[in-house]
Amino acid sequence: MDNPLNNPDLPRIGGKTWPEFIRLVENFHGYAAPGALLGGIMVELARERLLELRSERPVLFIVMAETYACLPDAVQLLTPCTVGNQRLHVLNLNRYALSFFAKPDGQGARVFVDNAKLGPWPHLRDWFMGITDKKDQDEALLCEDIRQGGAEACSVQLIKARPEFMSRERKGRNAICPICGEPYPLRDGESCLGCRESLPFELS
Amino acid sequence: MDNPLNNPDLPRIGGKTWPEFIRLVENFHGYAAPGALLGGIMVELARERLLELRSERPVLFIVMAETYACLPDAVQLLTPCTVGNQRLHVLNLNRYALSFFAKPDGQGARVFVDNAKLGPWPHLRDWFMGITDKKDQDEALLCEDIRQGGAEACSVQLIKARPEFMSRERKGRNAICPICGEPYPLRDGESCLGCRESLPFELS
Repeated sequence: MDNPLNNPDLPRIGGKTWPEFIRLVENFHGYAAPGALLGGIMVELARERLLELRSERPVLFIVMAETYACLPDAVQLLTPCTVGNQRLHVLNLNRYALSFFAKPDGQGARVFVDNAKLGPWPHLRDWFMGITDKKDQDEALLCEDIRQGGAEACSVQLIKARPEFMSRERKGRNAICPICGEPYPLRDGESCLGCRESLPFELS
Repeated sequence: MDNPLNNPDLPRIGGKTWPEFIRLVENFHGYAAPGALLGGIMVELARERLLELRSERPVLFIVMAETYACLPDAVQLLTPCTVGNQRLHVLNLNRYALSFFAKPDGQGARVFVDNAKLGPWPHLRDWFMGITDKKDQDEALLCEDIRQGGAEACSVQLIKARPEFMSRERKGRNAICPICGEPYPLRDGESCLGCRESLPFELS
């Protein structure tokens, strides 16, 4: 039987062919970043595993990404979870991993790139480990390694979210910050967080 | 002369009519959240102000949102800046404000909802200040207040980003974390951040 990955339209990601998915990434992310393409495969793996764990349909879920690099955009393109609707949480841990958590109990599936499985995919491995200089990267070979080897190079862990992660606090009433004069949630204290933390900008 | 805001297709947001913009928000964000609609108006204000400041074209920029609530999705829908391509930074300050910063020098325009200007828009004011209970909210009146009054209810500040905010560090080589066995950037230290911080999940 033919290897299905000889078909350049596979794998399907979010119901789309592989080339259609690449165009989706280009439009939203700005270019077909290898990390976003690999992220699409990881989203599919996490979603499938979570669905296997749950008998009820539909499964409501939230997502967590462990890096800001590329991965959040794959989630936002392929799931109802976005940063702005706060169903996608990004932790700045610099690990290339994402987790799907079912509501309300937080049963979850975490997908990560597994170093032990990168061997058969040298372009994927060298890019992922930061060995290849960007200028020396053969994008076509890397993309083909991701398409064919992305799913094989990942592992899945079953996890459970801590209860506080699954419950979302209500913002409540706003007050006017006595320092900057802007509205802010009363629950943040006597002044807004913007006036208590160091900001990356100043008035000009 | 007729008030242009008697025309329900105005204001145009990202080149789209107001009803088209609402559908865009529904598709990405999941529903026409008032915060995302107001966010679209704020994106337009910040972009216009930044373009007025700069003579060169095109202006390359990055964006900062001061809240996770809704606003990041307006930015991601209407600009090339996303969380995953790291041209959109979200600070968890709970202020409803966003800033556009021109590259490379960080000259910027910050748009915030100005409490002093909310008076003529009681539905917008009461929603924004958290006075109206969600179940008592008249969504149509609120949406109309946002459409007609959103731009008037905001103020713009000229700001300047700190230099470190405008420069993006390269990730460099990855190593294998001796604790979890996953790849992580060597610059993070002897183990990955995921193994040094408290995580919102555990293995199940």
